[in-house]
Amino acid sequence: MTETTGYSGGGLVHIKNPHLDSMEEDVLYHLDLGTKTHNLPAMFGDIKFVCVGGSPNRMRAFAQFMHKQLGLAGDGEDLADICAGTDRYAMYRAGPVLSISHGMGIPSISIMLHELIKLLHHAKCRDVTIIRIGTSGGLGIEAGSVVITDTAVDSSFKPRFEQVVLDDVVVRSTELDKDLVEELLACSKEIPDFPTLVGHTMCTYDFYEGQGRLDGALCSFSSEKKLQYLKRAYNAGVRNIEMESTAFAALCRLCGLKAAVVCVALLDRLEGDQIRAPREVLREYHGWTMPHRQRVAGSQAARCGGRKGLSR
Amino acid sequence: MTETTGYSGGGLVHIKNPHLDSMEEDVLYHLDLGTKTHNLPAMFGDIKFVCVGGSPNRMRAFAQFMHKQLGLAGDGEDLADICAGTDRYAMYRAGPVLSISHGMGIPSISIMLHELIKLLHHAKCRDVTIIRIGTSGGLGIEAGSVVITDTAVDSSFKPRFEQVVLDDVVVRSTELDKDLVEELLACSKEIPDFPTLVGHTMCTYDFYEGQGRLDGALCSFSSEKKLQYLKRAYNAGVRNIEMESTAFAALCRLCGLKAAVVCVALLDRLEGDQIRAPREVLREYHGWTMPHRQRVAGSQAARCGGRKGLSR
Repeated sequence: MTETTGYSGGGLVHIKNPHLDSMEEDVLYHLDLGTKTHNLPAMFGDIKFVCVGGSPNRMRAFAQFMHKQLGLAGDGEDLADICAGTDRYAMYRAGPVLSISHGMGIPSISIMLHELIKLLHHAKCRDVTIIRIGTSGGLGIEAGSVVITDTAVDSSFKPRFEQVVLDDVVVRSTELDKDLVEELLACSKEIPDFPTLVGHTMCTYDFYEGQGRLDGALCSFSSEKKLQYLKRAYNAGVRNIEMESTAFAALCRLCGLKAAVVCVALLDRLEGDQIRAPREVLREYHGWTMPHRQRVAGSQAARCGGRKGLSR
Repeated sequence: MTETTGYSGGGLVHIKNPHLDSMEEDVLYHLDLGTKTHNLPAMFGDIKFVCVGGSPNRMRAFAQFMHKQLGLAGDGEDLADICAGTDRYAMYRAGPVLSISHGMGIPSISIMLHELIKLLHHAKCRDVTIIRIGTSGGLGIEAGSVVITDTAVDSSFKPRFEQVVLDDVVVRSTELDKDLVEELLACSKEIPDFPTLVGHTMCTYDFYEGQGRLDGALCSFSSEKKLQYLKRAYNAGVRNIEMESTAFAALCRLCGLKAAVVCVALLDRLEGDQIRAPREVLREYHGWTMPHRQRVAGSQAARCGGRKGLSR
């Protein structure tokens, strides 16, 4: 079974669930928010951009960075975690930008996205753009490069996400917004010495065996087999590997959110498996210091978006 | 392809990776530990029990609880996070017990386990018992009940874990240690008013559509179809549903770790989908207050283990 849908017309978030209307209350359990306990339209109705990434500290730093970029009042150092009642995810806002962590892997990002999408629906948000700003392993590209994903593919290099629904498997498209890719790429060109490229992103369920690493607790394949696999991925157009993009692309697309994936590469997997760049360099990649690449990647996103979002 | 292995004979952790010996250094990136930067045998060589769970706060509270249970010096309130340099996972120790968070879902627990197993190997630990103390949705059981898993099954109720290795699929056994199940069950009988049962645990890749919930951002099935599926699961012996047990069982078994899964049920999924028990009740279930069920479940684990581990 294949599901296909285009982006939403009216700009509202699509909830494709007939049961939701008949619910008296909706508890967004993993965000520690709910329709009876919180005034979601008042809290989130003006959100235009959502940036998501794995690490809670990084998403806090990103919100602080956006706070300054947008010239909001105060120094932004004391932004409150909107999901403070739970430690499953962390959420911060800076003006029209929401910054949320999603943990690692498809199941983790998927729980967050279901509840985020319901939040945006309950809050009656319109024309929301969502960008995953993450870390990844590069493929044949220099460490520190930023990859803007044109297509998210699975471990067989196919642009699909297989979702188990009850005990059936539904195949979903992982197409991302083409205009947004172009817009993000144009932004990167404004910044000198900032290696940015567009390519396929491979999404796996596992960091070690599933990504062909030789350094896990288990490894049953040779260095040659690993390189053959990674080179086949490269030849299929894959330029980086991470663990969330197919589910992210599929779910956002089905719910009418304009979505992009922008990841920094922490290493070149054709050169090795271990992430062993000096800590300050990794910090730079991770966007924990200024100036640095990934936070700039986030700022691109916000600027691309910001131009539209803030002029409303 | 099916892999089978029994538990380790010599009591050491099995690393099934011939490449690891030739590595000059092993950076356990997501734990922010490494063989050159840390003296792992000195830090961890005497660890006998590892308890893992999704939430970092809960695993901190569990370590504090164990600190008190074991009568260690100090009040245990200021236990340091051993993985403080990263926010991917949190790790605490109390005597011979290590308490680690693993986030949500198979990919997230799998990254942690690969690095934990290598850590135990590098530290030359012997006879380690590992217990997942988690939360779950119950099936035909009262909220607050504790399920000790006899078999972890997938969404088709089969006792298997499918691991993608490069682009091949390897099927692994999800068998858990039978003696440990009996030992944990016996512990629970020492505590009155403490509903504990043994049953199959179903492990899914998704919290909403994959577990038959009607309250996600997407839902394409009826309430009847959902109940049919959950009842089929019940009839197959499933008593609770969570998102990590199959990968946990498979990986621990392959690496010679005696492993158990003990989860509290936050609700009965035959009665509903939303987790809406009052906060203080959920806290009790989650093990954030004393006395409470789940922390007791953890303490069972430690006591079962502790009797052996501490008498060495």
